Amino acid sequence: MKLSARNILPGTIFSVTKGTTTAHVVLELAPGLIVTASITNQAVDDLGLVEGQPASAIIKASDVMIGVA
Amino acid sequence: MKLSARNILPGTIFSVTKGTTTAHVVLELAPGLIVTASITNQAVDDLGLVEGQPASAIIKASDVMIGVA
Amino acid sequence: MKLSARNILPGTIFSVTKGTTTAHVVLELAPGLIVTASITNQAVDDLGLVEGQPASAIIKASDVMIGVA
Amino acid sequence: MKLSARNILPGTIFSVTKGTTTAHVVLELAPGLIVTASITNQAVDDLGLVEGQPASAIIKASDVMIGVA
Amino acid sequence: MKLSARNILPGTIFSVTKGTTTAHVVLELAPGLIVTASITNQAVDDLGLVEGQPASAIIKASDVMIGVA
Amino acid sequence: MKLSARNILPGTIFSVTKGTTTAHVVLELAPGLIVTASITNQAVDDLGLVEGQPASAIIKASDVMIGVA
Repeated sequence: MKLSARNILPGTIFSVTKGTTTAHVVLELAPGLIVTASITNQAVDDLGLVEGQPASAIIKASDVMIGVA
Repeated sequence: MKLSARNILPGTIFSVTKGTTTAHVVLELAPGLIVTASITNQAVDDLGLVEGQPASAIIKASDVMIGVA
Repeated sequence: MKLSARNILPGTIFSVTKGTTTAHVVLELAPGLIVTASITNQAVDDLGLVEGQPASAIIKASDVMIGVA
Repeated sequence: MKLSARNILPGTIFSVTKGTTTAHVVLELAPGLIVTASITNQAVDDLGLVEGQPASAIIKASDVMIGVA
Repeated sequence: MKLSARNILPGTIFSVTKGTTTAHVVLELAPGLIVTASITNQAVDDLGLVEGQPASAIIKASDVMIGVA
Repeated sequence: MKLSARNILPGTIFSVTKGTTTAHVVLELAPGLIVTASITNQAVDDLGLVEGQPASAIIKASDVMIGVA
């Protein structure tokens, strides 16, 4: 499936932490560059997400803010 | 200001495209790794965003999805 | 690509309206059941979205609110 | 209350699963067409959400992505 | 309609600025406390939003970040 | 850091409730005007959020809906 999302950032799963309903998945995009996703436990199970697996972080442009020092 | 957002990705502004009310700002995080943000024109003006400027993409963990091939 | 998003709703593109930077895409999921997406013009062009085309609305569970009468 | 949200999809609550702070509510919009919402437990309690109850999924257009095969 | 959204902040419309597809609506919640919403032009028209009108800003808890000095 | 987010609402932390992975933080912006944020437990720990602490609610304009009676 091709997505309208402007940001599809490939990486590797660094960790998966499941809560009661919500899980946190940490992706490493490049050495030292990590992204954390908060998704449902159900999604973790459906996709069979495990550490070391290739995966992408997908982010809609309207969900990205800009900060300057 | 320190933020609760889990994802604060430093980079350099590659382009700024203003529309009538909404602007698209493209950041380069690393060579070939870009992130697009859709923000208000007003924010572009307030922050004085221009190409080549250091800036960060800020993304809440709950706005990140995961995709696997 | 398999997605963590809990909501992938298949339909047909009913209309595409481009603004200066932001486009509105209306999908018909079933007769009388429509969903509107606000995405970048660039995404419309990249995906070549046109009326009558099969497409899905993809929505993260954390972006869905519930309302009761 | 009338809402700016472009997507107000009526259905029936299929299931309510509460976690420690976050609940998942599944709505059936039409036979076989379900939508999952991730909301606070507090909202579940305030609205008194239970299986079989009529309810709507409310989604802002800027939170909808488009995918094509 | 009763909403799961945790944040329903009543105020008065201070300004409405329409773009080509996307509008910015500024609400005053209290003297000096304003909130800006980016919504579709279509929503502005459907709700008939005008300056001086009572209206509420509605925000899902998962869309609120916290910052500390 | 200066942010593109149009809504940076200063207040005081009224309560912090941690779940297994997700926490709810309630801010009081003015007497009787509260905002609830759903953030990661990790963010609560990183920022050291406690009741009575000054903090701001940060909300992107595209995450604000408008409702009228």
